[in-house]
Amino acid sequence: MTLPPFGKEAPGSDGYDGPDAGLLAPGSAGSPASSTTSDAAYLRALLDAEVALTRAQAALGLAPEEAATAVSSAAVTGSFDLRDIADRARAGGNPVIPLVADLTKAVGAEYGPYVHRGATSQDIMDTATMLVAVRTLDPALADLERIQRALARLAAEHRDTAMPGRTLAQHAVPTTFGLKAAGWRSLVLDARDRLGAVRNGLPAQLGGAAGTLAAFDVFGASDSGALVAAYARELGLAEPLLPWHTLRTPVADLAGALAFTAGALGKPAVDVLTLSRTEIAEVSEGSGGGSSAMPHKANPVRSTLIAAAARRAPQLAATLYGSLVAEDERPAGAWHAEWEPLRDLLRLVAGAAGNAVELTEGLRVHADMMRRHLDLTHGLIVSERLAAELAPVLGRARAKELLSETAKRVSAEDRSLAELLAEEPELKALDVDLADWTDPTRYTGSAGALTDRALERR
Amino acid sequence: MTLPPFGKEAPGSDGYDGPDAGLLAPGSAGSPASSTTSDAAYLRALLDAEVALTRAQAALGLAPEEAATAVSSAAVTGSFDLRDIADRARAGGNPVIPLVADLTKAVGAEYGPYVHRGATSQDIMDTATMLVAVRTLDPALADLERIQRALARLAAEHRDTAMPGRTLAQHAVPTTFGLKAAGWRSLVLDARDRLGAVRNGLPAQLGGAAGTLAAFDVFGASDSGALVAAYARELGLAEPLLPWHTLRTPVADLAGALAFTAGALGKPAVDVLTLSRTEIAEVSEGSGGGSSAMPHKANPVRSTLIAAAARRAPQLAATLYGSLVAEDERPAGAWHAEWEPLRDLLRLVAGAAGNAVELTEGLRVHADMMRRHLDLTHGLIVSERLAAELAPVLGRARAKELLSETAKRVSAEDRSLAELLAEEPELKALDVDLADWTDPTRYTGSAGALTDRALERR
Amino acid sequence: MTLPPFGKEAPGSDGYDGPDAGLLAPGSAGSPASSTTSDAAYLRALLDAEVALTRAQAALGLAPEEAATAVSSAAVTGSFDLRDIADRARAGGNPVIPLVADLTKAVGAEYGPYVHRGATSQDIMDTATMLVAVRTLDPALADLERIQRALARLAAEHRDTAMPGRTLAQHAVPTTFGLKAAGWRSLVLDARDRLGAVRNGLPAQLGGAAGTLAAFDVFGASDSGALVAAYARELGLAEPLLPWHTLRTPVADLAGALAFTAGALGKPAVDVLTLSRTEIAEVSEGSGGGSSAMPHKANPVRSTLIAAAARRAPQLAATLYGSLVAEDERPAGAWHAEWEPLRDLLRLVAGAAGNAVELTEGLRVHADMMRRHLDLTHGLIVSERLAAELAPVLGRARAKELLSETAKRVSAEDRSLAELLAEEPELKALDVDLADWTDPTRYTGSAGALTDRALERR
Amino acid sequence: MTLPPFGKEAPGSDGYDGPDAGLLAPGSAGSPASSTTSDAAYLRALLDAEVALTRAQAALGLAPEEAATAVSSAAVTGSFDLRDIADRARAGGNPVIPLVADLTKAVGAEYGPYVHRGATSQDIMDTATMLVAVRTLDPALADLERIQRALARLAAEHRDTAMPGRTLAQHAVPTTFGLKAAGWRSLVLDARDRLGAVRNGLPAQLGGAAGTLAAFDVFGASDSGALVAAYARELGLAEPLLPWHTLRTPVADLAGALAFTAGALGKPAVDVLTLSRTEIAEVSEGSGGGSSAMPHKANPVRSTLIAAAARRAPQLAATLYGSLVAEDERPAGAWHAEWEPLRDLLRLVAGAAGNAVELTEGLRVHADMMRRHLDLTHGLIVSERLAAELAPVLGRARAKELLSETAKRVSAEDRSLAELLAEEPELKALDVDLADWTDPTRYTGSAGALTDRALERR
Repeated sequence: MTLPPFGKEAPGSDGYDGPDAGLLAPGSAGSPASSTTSDAAYLRALLDAEVALTRAQAALGLAPEEAATAVSSAAVTGSFDLRDIADRARAGGNPVIPLVADLTKAVGAEYGPYVHRGATSQDIMDTATMLVAVRTLDPALADLERIQRALARLAAEHRDTAMPGRTLAQHAVPTTFGLKAAGWRSLVLDARDRLGAVRNGLPAQLGGAAGTLAAFDVFGASDSGALVAAYARELGLAEPLLPWHTLRTPVADLAGALAFTAGALGKPAVDVLTLSRTEIAEVSEGSGGGSSAMPHKANPVRSTLIAAAARRAPQLAATLYGSLVAEDERPAGAWHAEWEPLRDLLRLVAGAAGNAVELTEGLRVHADMMRRHLDLTHGLIVSERLAAELAPVLGRARAKELLSETAKRVSAEDRSLAELLAEEPELKALDVDLADWTDPTRYTGSAGALTDRALERR
Repeated sequence: MTLPPFGKEAPGSDGYDGPDAGLLAPGSAGSPASSTTSDAAYLRALLDAEVALTRAQAALGLAPEEAATAVSSAAVTGSFDLRDIADRARAGGNPVIPLVADLTKAVGAEYGPYVHRGATSQDIMDTATMLVAVRTLDPALADLERIQRALARLAAEHRDTAMPGRTLAQHAVPTTFGLKAAGWRSLVLDARDRLGAVRNGLPAQLGGAAGTLAAFDVFGASDSGALVAAYARELGLAEPLLPWHTLRTPVADLAGALAFTAGALGKPAVDVLTLSRTEIAEVSEGSGGGSSAMPHKANPVRSTLIAAAARRAPQLAATLYGSLVAEDERPAGAWHAEWEPLRDLLRLVAGAAGNAVELTEGLRVHADMMRRHLDLTHGLIVSERLAAELAPVLGRARAKELLSETAKRVSAEDRSLAELLAEEPELKALDVDLADWTDPTRYTGSAGALTDRALERR
Repeated sequence: MTLPPFGKEAPGSDGYDGPDAGLLAPGSAGSPASSTTSDAAYLRALLDAEVALTRAQAALGLAPEEAATAVSSAAVTGSFDLRDIADRARAGGNPVIPLVADLTKAVGAEYGPYVHRGATSQDIMDTATMLVAVRTLDPALADLERIQRALARLAAEHRDTAMPGRTLAQHAVPTTFGLKAAGWRSLVLDARDRLGAVRNGLPAQLGGAAGTLAAFDVFGASDSGALVAAYARELGLAEPLLPWHTLRTPVADLAGALAFTAGALGKPAVDVLTLSRTEIAEVSEGSGGGSSAMPHKANPVRSTLIAAAARRAPQLAATLYGSLVAEDERPAGAWHAEWEPLRDLLRLVAGAAGNAVELTEGLRVHADMMRRHLDLTHGLIVSERLAAELAPVLGRARAKELLSETAKRVSAEDRSLAELLAEEPELKALDVDLADWTDPTRYTGSAGALTDRALERR
Repeated sequence: MTLPPFGKEAPGSDGYDGPDAGLLAPGSAGSPASSTTSDAAYLRALLDAEVALTRAQAALGLAPEEAATAVSSAAVTGSFDLRDIADRARAGGNPVIPLVADLTKAVGAEYGPYVHRGATSQDIMDTATMLVAVRTLDPALADLERIQRALARLAAEHRDTAMPGRTLAQHAVPTTFGLKAAGWRSLVLDARDRLGAVRNGLPAQLGGAAGTLAAFDVFGASDSGALVAAYARELGLAEPLLPWHTLRTPVADLAGALAFTAGALGKPAVDVLTLSRTEIAEVSEGSGGGSSAMPHKANPVRSTLIAAAARRAPQLAATLYGSLVAEDERPAGAWHAEWEPLRDLLRLVAGAAGNAVELTEGLRVHADMMRRHLDLTHGLIVSERLAAELAPVLGRARAKELLSETAKRVSAEDRSLAELLAEEPELKALDVDLADWTDPTRYTGSAGALTDRALERR
């Protein structure tokens, strides 16, 4: 086969040379986050920042009101060619330069000079990034609320549903599904709190060429602080204490809170993947995904996509933390290295939150399988309790010896610990409640109380 | 040359087979952080956790007071062989198992059974890790205070010291060293706030085999919450809402705050590296490091070691964020993967803080070089201002044209912008203060006001 | 200001809700790599894989020749809606499932059943990824050749252009620009060799539902090896020894070679950033990028964009290395986490190579500035040599003492080492060639010979 | 409880302030890699490098033979205090400076001047690192050989042991344990090949202060190439084409090969973790690790420790890849950031190899459980086959319909697919071998042939 040449010549498709639509991103394609983080959304936010800049100057009397009107209008009615701007961004290394040229042209000769006046590219780019973050986080935070509510419901409903506690992939002692769900919720609340706090502090950026706001002085700003405040107010963003061109706290805070959230959602996802294994089947996703080859399969696709996001987020955050080390008044690379990873993180995490809504609201819990598995070790799952109960009765040494011998017989004879212990003359003689001691559902400790306590958190 | 065989046979040294003493870690060797994060410090913290566990049980009447006394005493007077415990940790995958065996033996037959009673290895390991974190962060936070004070002093002292603002490695417009130092301080305060908040919330860990605290019931604890509270109180750690064996918020929060701090210290370090280059020489470290080959060199070693730490921290944090995805009631790998990276992060960041104390307290600022460099572009560093000033005077188009032509002549004729503009007939005719417009020290905008404002933050 | 609502309603733009066109990616937007890694390019590669699968079956008589023709034709003439496929990928977690549905429909009832027959989604997805990699790497490898040629020319031309060697940001001893360029080239050749070797081994993927190729047996394949070979041949990819659904050597090899290449290009970029600083100005980019605020600036934009890519690549590679740990016969997350990072790496690195072509072919070297800077330390840059030369003449101790004293005077009196030494009575008495010893251009050691030797490598 | 003060005062322990012995590293503590990468091993390697340097000079007549003897002897008989050297490394930022001082003193006045003559700290440090790498990799490569042999044995033995193939955590179609083991081996061979190739190319480092070898000229070296060759020969390392102070190919190559190996070992580890879950129990580790609380548990500790290493390695490699971007002739931070991550990677990966030897040589395979699980889906595991077999018999549409209906009944009626199909009148009428079609052990496709083929690779 000779492959046809690659590129525009390829006929009949939706355009082989076109832009990205999320083909490699099933975790977020088609989601709100996909829209709020698209190139088009960034373009929109860049324009919003430019509009706010002119409006703030007009509000302080540094520019005529007509200039603000003209820029606002051109930002909405003007025609901006994303692809063309992206390509022209190459020359100067950022998209603001060509966008400003296009916007200035769209505004026209009279008020064009007021476009971007006094600002530097980074003022606009950083501000736009914060707008995109806010617009992506708000729905994501709402999704986290839905998730925590779904988990609260699961935890309450299964407060006393006993199941095997597993450590290092082995049954340990019993726990409850309620406690597990309450734990998941606790992580989600931690994520919500961290992400919400960061979101509320996201600042506008305005510093001018080297962060001194010097040009605005020349344009008549007697108080640059008032200008920054007005600009931030126009945008609904926080007012920064200092220009943060190379003080990247907002970006690093986003990185940390987003990586945290990815992990917080990844924990329930990976538990569901385990618990929905064919052999375990203690939970299943509400609507499993199909397979191209095996019609019977119901894959835990929501969990899979969340788990995939959680694998990527930490390294994206690492790149952003690395960009804190930004030399000079604007770094040659550290800043540019932030743009795509931050967008990716926002998109991944918000996409994961959307998947986690479906996962948690639709999760089916198979309490019968949980109960059945508690017997899988023929009672050894409560050996910790028996050791504790028998020690005061038989003496510590004899208790240990008896348990150890009996445990071996459990495997060898394929009989239950309860059965074998019931036959022990020493124990028969005593008035002990072996049925209670060997009942896995009666060894869940404080699981119920912990669940109650965790659910009090709002 | 035949290399002598490697290992114990190598005579005459301090032991070729010995433990690590920081040979590869000049950024922290010999520092307080090196001590507070050593294997010995972890051993101590593990013992502290075991002692607290028995004492808390005694306090609630679950164990005899004599048991608490016996364990406390053995933890101090007992002999624990670090190397041996480390080697035996291999079998079960964590050091608590062999340590408990040794401690139990040291306590003796009567009260030995009270050692570690009801706990799981992870309870002790996680608690010890939090103790190590607290003990490392407290001096590190004190160092951050010293750093911010030193930077506040530099910022105030150089409030009006003009210097070139640099973007993408090129002179942009003037700024001040005061604003730069105030920005560094702002990052350090952000780090202090984040790290301090995390430190204050670090919790004790107590959950038992699978996080249900079930064994304590058998031992008579009617209220496991009271036990956890007593245990946390003994340790001076926060009381957790839930056992956090697989809810790793405290570790992730540490990761984020430490990575942030590394970056926050890395920013001034990388600026000092740039500004102390032989050609720039605007600052120099108080005491430069020597070279093995060139006696004249004074290397910026503090900055170098801080920069090295900042390069490593984000990836260590990434591993820790990745461990949020911890399956089951105790994961098979995610937990084990936390121990060394968290220790490394603590050590690196606290070491970097120590170096940053020396860097900032000893930094020498060469204001004369800063002033000299403002003229390096023959006045082009204020071209932004001139464009803004000339536009209303000459008309925007003519102003731009004139500046552009003159800028070319600056390079070609090696004369200053001020000189060339002064010869322009158009400008001679006007009553403009060219001397002021072309003085780089008079184009620092709001740098002074921003510095003042930033210094108000405590 | 009330921001207009976000989304489709926003009028007048190129579509606020559209797909990504590279707005945040000035390092690759508009480049060949941007095309070869677009969603459309992946779609094309997915179709190519499906076509090859049917053709291979036809070639072995497992399917009618007409089926192959029908699938080939539909893959070219069919209409595939990228956005729609991307959105539908959500359900099953990968884009192959909806694509197969659309392709089957396009092929029609008769030969539709031959589409994707016997394969699993991962067969197609992995194969397509390898095709995209090959199509991206071939031009990138050609760019690496151009870069190495440009560097070879620079190295040869400046074989004897002396300049300061710098260590820890300080002048150390002289070196040559030729040796520096030869070193850059050496890294680029290493990258070319690693990337070329990986590219040549990239395999097709064919394993069926769980990697046993079982379905093909039912369809009549007596020798599944022959089928895999035919399939690989159709695609121009290597034949795999085993299905590699969870044996991710090809992806990890790509990750390593691409991260290496990013770093190999990052080294010259970061050197150019340093050497083109306003104060150093020993090199400059052929065509610097403009600034939105300061018309005089010529920013080292190529280097900046390469440096930004080099900051991101290692963490992207880390995610891919992490995906080696892929459980079962197809993992739930590790595989899905590969797609975007691998595409990002390909795009970033190929984009960086394109920028590096421009950087190296256009680099301007200012030998006069290099020469001038050799005198910046008033001769201390050759103190290593003087220590070595004087020791046998004056005795080691006296030589050291004399140099040390004189070095102090160099700084204090602002006179050159050569001058001060020439006045020393001890040295006047001797017949030593001080002029030679203190000439920095005569202390470049083996720089020339090393350059020659390095240039012999092809 | 008042915690006793931290530090030296703590009595009775092995020294709370001592160096690290591997307490947090159960994956490598006590292993050969722990010795070959210890601080003491680095000290030894640093001394080996210094000895080789003097010996090479003596061999070329640049130093008296007695100097070489004196240095060799002092390096073995001298007393070097690791802790003291580590602490003094702080001043200059690397341990070579204080070590050279101590070694020079140990050599004595006459030949002391020949110690380190002409070299820079980085020459010694980099060379020592390569020696440590070689000394760690050789046993690790031997371990990889043992692992691949154990896996070859498992693959051959279980060539036809059918088991469920699992994708996205669900049963897909059957596979064999032989194919799985052959796949694991294939990854291990890939690791061996990559690591072996890198190991064989690891070069000595010799460049002098700025990589020009200039000082050696003064000391009489007419041909610095011969000196480098002699030096490399002394050390058993490869001869470098150029000094590689800032051309970090060897370090990056190590990073890639080590991260690869960690992942290659992580794949079988994570499979064992899954397959040894209490509910699955298809394999178990030869000797499971104990628990501090539950005496019955046999934890998959080898797999756990390998999995933990695999989680950390990619991010460590990322830091090393990042250090390729090393400015100037010696970078201020990038080089220093390499030391500990490279040591960690070597230690982790070699430790993981040791654990993998035990894991693979001791692995117990429970073929009966595998067989039992093939029936867990009541035959749906072969639905792919039935669809393919029935289509030509019943027509594609009817086949699909029948299977779909029957699959639903399988779940609803809890009967097997074979049973239900056997009752279908349409199928009774036909002469089809339903027993064969529904036997999962007869649908392993080319698993056997692929295993045979994979085992031919050596």
